[in-house]
Order: sequence, then C-alpha cells, then structure tokens
Amino acid sequence: MNPVYISGVGMTKFGKNPRSLAEICCQAAEIALADSDPQAVDAIYIGAMNPEEFTGDSNIASQIVDALGLTGIPAIRVETASSAGAAAVFAGFQAIASGCYRRVLVLAGEKMTHLSTSATTRILAEVIDKRERQCGATMPALAAMVTEKYRQKFRLSESRLENMLCAVALKNHLNGAKNPTAQFQNAISRDIYLASKHIATPLRLYDCAPITDGAAALVLSADKTDVRISGVGQGTGPLSLRERDVFTSFPATLRAAERAYAMAQVAPQDIDFAEVHDAFTPFEIISTEDLGFFPPGKGGEAVLRGDTAIDGRLPVNPSGGLKARGHPVGASGLAQVVEATITLRGQGPLKREVKRGITQSTGGLATNNFVTILERTDAPPVTHLWTPPPTAPPIAHRKQRNARIAAEGVIETFTILYVTPDGFLPPLALALVRDRHGELLMAQGEDETQLKIGQDVYLRRLGGVYYFTVKSQIEVVQQAFMKLFRRKPAKPAQNSQGSPRK
Amino acid sequence: MNPVYISGVGMTKFGKNPRSLAEICCQAAEIALADSDPQAVDAIYIGAMNPEEFTGDSNIASQIVDALGLTGIPAIRVETASSAGAAAVFAGFQAIASGCYRRVLVLAGEKMTHLSTSATTRILAEVIDKRERQCGATMPALAAMVTEKYRQKFRLSESRLENMLCAVALKNHLNGAKNPTAQFQNAISRDIYLASKHIATPLRLYDCAPITDGAAALVLSADKTDVRISGVGQGTGPLSLRERDVFTSFPATLRAAERAYAMAQVAPQDIDFAEVHDAFTPFEIISTEDLGFFPPGKGGEAVLRGDTAIDGRLPVNPSGGLKARGHPVGASGLAQVVEATITLRGQGPLKREVKRGITQSTGGLATNNFVTILERTDAPPVTHLWTPPPTAPPIAHRKQRNARIAAEGVIETFTILYVTPDGFLPPLALALVRDRHGELLMAQGEDETQLKIGQDVYLRRLGGVYYFTVKSQIEVVQQAFMKLFRRKPAKPAQNSQGSPRK
Repeated sequence: MNPVYISGVGMTKFGKNPRSLAEICCQAAEIALADSDPQAVDAIYIGAMNPEEFTGDSNIASQIVDALGLTGIPAIRVETASSAGAAAVFAGFQAIASGCYRRVLVLAGEKMTHLSTSATTRILAEVIDKRERQCGATMPALAAMVTEKYRQKFRLSESRLENMLCAVALKNHLNGAKNPTAQFQNAISRDIYLASKHIATPLRLYDCAPITDGAAALVLSADKTDVRISGVGQGTGPLSLRERDVFTSFPATLRAAERAYAMAQVAPQDIDFAEVHDAFTPFEIISTEDLGFFPPGKGGEAVLRGDTAIDGRLPVNPSGGLKARGHPVGASGLAQVVEATITLRGQGPLKREVKRGITQSTGGLATNNFVTILERTDAPPVTHLWTPPPTAPPIAHRKQRNARIAAEGVIETFTILYVTPDGFLPPLALALVRDRHGELLMAQGEDETQLKIGQDVYLRRLGGVYYFTVKSQIEVVQQAFMKLFRRKPAKPAQNSQGSPRK
Repeated sequence: MNPVYISGVGMTKFGKNPRSLAEICCQAAEIALADSDPQAVDAIYIGAMNPEEFTGDSNIASQIVDALGLTGIPAIRVETASSAGAAAVFAGFQAIASGCYRRVLVLAGEKMTHLSTSATTRILAEVIDKRERQCGATMPALAAMVTEKYRQKFRLSESRLENMLCAVALKNHLNGAKNPTAQFQNAISRDIYLASKHIATPLRLYDCAPITDGAAALVLSADKTDVRISGVGQGTGPLSLRERDVFTSFPATLRAAERAYAMAQVAPQDIDFAEVHDAFTPFEIISTEDLGFFPPGKGGEAVLRGDTAIDGRLPVNPSGGLKARGHPVGASGLAQVVEATITLRGQGPLKREVKRGITQSTGGLATNNFVTILERTDAPPVTHLWTPPPTAPPIAHRKQRNARIAAEGVIETFTILYVTPDGFLPPLALALVRDRHGELLMAQGEDETQLKIGQDVYLRRLGGVYYFTVKSQIEVVQQAFMKLFRRKPAKPAQNSQGSPRK
C-alpha cells in the first residue's frame, strides 16, 4: 500500500455563511490548494450528507468541480450520513494508496442555516430508522436515551452525570474560544450551562452541537510531507436503537478503531491528542472509552479530572469539537482531520510537541463511524497492538420482527423531548421498552412523569406507533382511550391486542 | 496496483418492484454473493443517486448493511448522479487495488416507480444547473438540444436523424426481448416508434429510457477469477449547457475513456462489445463515437448498417441498454458491468466468444462519466495506445458571468418540450441562445413555431429567466408584454434592458 501524506489543509470559518454550498466548498478548497505544493490535483473526493434536501441541488460533485474551475477532473461524492467528511478522507486515502492517483483534493461541506430549525431537524432525523422516527424520535432524543442508559449502567447520580456533561461543554467552549475558525468563540460558565433549556432530558442546549454552515478541505499526496495518514478504519452499527445489544458503547467505533490502530501499528497509549465526534457531549465521553483511552464508564471522570483539557494528559477536541467549532454535518469528519493536521504541524493550540493524533467521526446514531490516525513523519516508529476491550459484545444482527408484541414491558431507557419534530407536541415522552418476550421497541408515552429505567409499563399499538403507559395510571388512560375512540369499554378478554393481561 | 477480479454478479429483474430500496438491493446482493466463492466480503460500496428524495430516507449505507444482515462491515455510499453505480465500481476497484480490502461487495439501486412522473421528473432535473432548470429545462430537454445540434453539425436531414434514432431504439428493444432481467421484453416496430409522442423534439417516448426500480450487485476480489477489471476512468464536464464549447461530443467520456484505455493498455480496436449509457438514443450514438469506435458524426450510420447489432462487428448494448433493460438511475452504471461480465463469461446473448468489453456510464447531462474495461483473464495481452480524437477541444472553464446580456442573439440549439416540469405548460419552447457578446444562455420561447438553429431572436429578462422572441414577431410580443405589465409602451431609448436595439 502506497503511503499517504497530507500536503495542504483549509477550512472556512464555521457558522452562518450567506454563500451557496458550492461557494463555501470553494473557499475551503482554495485555502487547502494554496497550502499545497504543487497545487494540481488528479481527482476530488467530496463529502456531503444531504445537499439534495438542504439545498435542493443534486449532482453536487459536478457542481463543485465546475465552481472550482477544475471541470474535467474526476470528482466523486461519498456519503455516510454525518461522518461523510471522514468517508471522503477514507475514499481519498484508498485512491492514493491504490496508486490510481498521485494527489487528490478531499473536500466536505454542508449548508444548513438557511432552513428553519424544524426543517433541519426533519432532514437530520431521516438518518434514523423509519419506525423510530414515526414515534417522534430525533437525533437528540436517541442520544438522550443512550445517555440515560449510560447513567444507569455506571451508577451515576443525576447531578454527577450533569457535572460530567457540563465539564465537556465548558472544556470545548474554552477550546473553541481560541480557535479562529470556530463558530462559538466564547467560553461559557457552569451557570450558563445550567440555565440552558433541556432539548431531550438529560441533554441541554449546551450538550448539543449547533446547526452550522461550513466546509473543510485537504490535499492528500503520494509525495512525502511532514504529516501522514497512518491508519484508517470504518465500522457500521445497527440503524435502530431497538436492534442493539449494548447502548453505552458504539461497536461501529470499536471496529473502526481496531482497523485503524492495526493499520498504523499503534495503540491508544501512543496517541497524543484526539478530535472526537461530540455532536452530543456524552458522545465525547463514550468515544474516548471506545478508542481505548479510558475504561468503560470512566471517561466522564477523566474530563472532571482535567485529563482531556488542552493541557491535560490527552487533550480531547483541542479545536473546540463539534460543540464549539460547529457541526456542518457532512464537513465535520474532515474538519477533524484538518484540525489534527494543524495541531501536528505545531500550529494549533497545544503548547507541547505532539507526534500522533486520532480523529473519530460518527455517522447517524453511531451507525457508520470512522477512525483516522495521523502522525508526523518524524515520529519514532512504534509497534503496539490493540484489541477492543473484551466487554465489547459481538454485533448480533436480528431481522426486524413483525410478531405481535406483548401488552406489558419494562422501560429500557427513555427521554422527554422538548424540541419535537413537526407534528409532535412537546413535552414528548419516548422510551425504548423491552416487552415480555424480550423484544425492544420504541414507544411514545402518555405521560412524561414517573419515568425511570426499569419501570413497568403497559403497551398498546395504534396506527403503526407504539404507546406506553406507566402501570399505576392505567385506568385513567384506558378511559381516555375509550373516550378518544368513542367506544364502550371492551372486556379485556375480547381485546386481544393492547389490553393488560390479567 | 493489485489486480481486481470479479467473483460474483447479481441483478434484480428491472421494472416496477413493490419492495423497498433496501430490500431490492438485498435481492441483487444475495444473488451476487451466492455467485461468489467465498461469499464473505470485507466492505460494501453502494451507488444510489437520490434515495433521500426518492424514498425519504438518508443514511442509506447503514440501512442496507443492516438489511443485508452484515451490520459491522464498513459500508460507503458513493454518488455521481446517474452514473452512481459506475462510481461504486470505481470506488470498490480502488479499495481492492489499494490492498485495503481483499473482497468487496459493490451494490447499486434506485427505487423510482412509486412516485408520480412529475415528481420523478423534478427530482431527476435537480442534476441540471439551477438557472437552466428555472427556464423549465429537464433532462430530456437538454438531451434534445444536444441532438438537434448533432443533426445540424453533421448535416443530417430530419428524416435521416429519425431513422438513426429509430434504429437504436429498435435494436435495443430487440436485444432486451432476449434478456430475462430487462424491463421491456418486447421488440418494437418502426411504426410503433413513429407513433410514439414527442417528449422533447426531436426525441420521442421511445428515445428515452423508462422510470424503473432495480438493483445490481458485484463482488470484487483480489483473488483470481475468470474476469477482471483491467481499466477504469472517470471524467467530468461542465454542469450547464451554456458553459460548453462543444455539444455533440462529451469531454467527460473522452477523459474517462483515455484513462481507462491507458490503464488497460488497449485501444478501441481491441474491444469486442460495449454497454453504453443510452438514457436517450442519441447518447448511444455519441458514446460510440467518444469511445473511439466510429469517427464523429458516423455513429448513426454504423447503427443503420447493423455494425452495432447483436451479430454485428461491435455489438452495442446487447443487454438491451438503459432503453429496454430499464434505468433505475443509480443502478444503471453497475448493471452495465454486471451485463458485461455475464457476456464475457459466455452466458450472454452473444453467439461468438468475446475477450474484452467496455462499459460507459453518464452522470447528469454528461457531467460525470465513467468508462470501465473488463477482460477475460485468458485474453491474450495486447499493448495498444489510444488518444482522444484531435477534434476533441480542451475544456475551457468560464466563470458564470452576471454581465448584462445583449438584447439580440442567435439560436444555437433548441427543443420543444411536450412533457414539462410542474409549473410549466406544454408545449414549451426552449433554446440555447448566443447573444451578440458571444455569451450562451438558456431562454424560454414565446412561440414554438419558426424555430431553427441560426435563427435571429430578441432577448429579454424577466424575474431571473430569459425569454426569446423570433425576430419577425417582435411587435406582436412587445404589445403582449406591455399589456401584461399594464404599462404604456416606453420609448426604446429609455428602456435600456430588454428592448430591441435600433
């Protein structure tokens, strides 16, 4: 395999950008090409998540190659939801490694801020399994459910978890304040964090990356430069939450990390800093655990200890991360690699010299993840092996079943959604419920109080959507249902689906 | 570069398919995996043009890897408009050639028939430059303008051109009738062709590939099999028609062919058969010229002579092509490679043994094209060089200008559109007009009669859209305009924009 070097990087300032997607991409590309010597490239790999719906244009690769004034050059768009930028790096890497091309431009961008929040939320939610979407689930809702499960599994009190998430947000905003391309250039205080409203409990506004316009660009080369990509890896995970065996770790990251570490022949202890996908603050914690830096359940403590601060043992998201730098979805995976290159060149915020960095990008709800390892070409060689922690379960695929669900179940995890997609009124209680047969399903709650993991619930199905009711309130809701459908109360024995078993 | 072999192929029957896109893709993948030994793959490359808008789902790579029961395996979607299937082959080729993977599944599909024709037309038209779309231009409209220009450039009478296009349609339907996976399995007669209505003059219904559901699949392997991919090439061309220097040849194909021939070290005379992108019958003729099989302007005669028939010197589209096999946009480029593999294995419709085949796929209006060369591993080696014909002009990129256009111009090419997008009433006259400054622009006509290439017209701009009027009718239209805007006729000297010069 031919070695792959980085010969140029570029980025727009992230945030609201009045230009078109093609123009934003050109801005980033021109900076990267000017940074590269020579400037000519053989091909272009473009990452974008959903320009079709965000901008109303398709055929984006041709549009961008035209806008760049490079018409004629091969240009391919690659897409893996919110990790599309990392997928473009991966495809560009293979193009150089194969010997097909000597030098390629990797480009990734997204234009989002011109749409309403509800339109953007709807487009972003299309990455989620259709059935879970029908319940009103959004990306923040699923991330919140993962977080609640994490809290329960590792026996964290609500305030302990809040402290951890707050610490991630404060650290990343502090880092972003020093990054001229970051969307948010202000440090925030604990009070500001705590005053921000809940998007989906326990996640607050300041736990979620913002809606952003922006693009990043990278020139990859077969000719030696000061930084090379030494390892790339990709892994996928189940699309739906209900198909998962584990919620507090992402097998897609574990698989990607295993491949990237093996290709680079390094292990977590050889890594000096990381840029990880903190679209939600708890995901930064989970990512640092999945990448092997901290044991499962210990990533939050590391943040509180300051281990991942810019002057800590392992700086995580020294650029500000998606949280503060901004998250133009398709661009983020590439922006991480650009930031890591800047850091390795010694032009970043880190005070000390670093030799190796890692980036981790998440597509959808950890359905399609990438890990990329970069190193200075003067880094002393090491040969370490890393295997994912033995606690990582195998990914068991189960076909979606249409079997009739049981009428009772137990809450596996839940959230109360305060920013709902069109057609759903807040507050919206959502829970992943395990029915008596052991099947998981996403359900809407009739009431947002009294929710906790392990709570017994009744289940009903109406119009393709499941509803749950906390057991003690069953009579009240039963009456409401009857009133809703203007029927007389049916005897439980006749009402085979949805009624409580006696 | 590691050699890349084909170890398995699969396809669904093209046509209306009631299943979901993921299920259709699984159908094709299962056939290809069963055809491959061993069946395990390291990664999946998925081509799809616009599942976001056709099906309402994004994150299609994760969705498909899940549906296949292969969750965990890396899966990347690649997209280059209607050549996405060929782009997936290209990306899969690089993945094996780089040594990253030993065996990959290449999969491509599209689900289109569940939408109305107007919705599908709108989604397909998003590949076109936005300004040209604003005039009402669709893919058939632009293809028709290219065809009219071809007729004029090569001095073909209307009936001579009609004979040529009819011959392509009849040939491909005859071939499709022998292909069990083709959408149309009926030969058509000249009378049926001539009785079909015009979509966009001079193109009739039978000149256009149909709307189709379908998927194709391919297993690529580093281990030797009976067929290998010996050359791949990609090229891009200007997105908009008005940025082009040449209309009757596609530089994107020339560039892709140059690269593919060079990699395979063969020339057109070494090729035994071709599968080319006949989304419109004239494009088959242009493609065979661009691939170097016939001189410019001579491809049509070759069809009439029977050179490209299934028993001719160079069978073109022995599978029936997009015209008869059907055109699920993202799948077509891969379906061509699948068909070529079947033909090389001796399981296709060709009576004689063949050693080398070529496929050519077109993205958008020839904005992103691919050429793939396949050969039997027992083919005797040849080393020929091919360079694109010297008539192929360099691709000059010109930035879009906002300069004020002249008020007069000449029709460069035109069409009358009978199947219009929503918001436009048929018949809709569209012309590419060269103004007095030499700038090309797309304009809507006030009248669909009296159109011919070289016709002098007046130009006006209203609401971002250009309109043209054939010179002799100017007074009539001027009055209509004045009435429309309820203004008194202005003196020409005061009306600086849009009025005819004196």
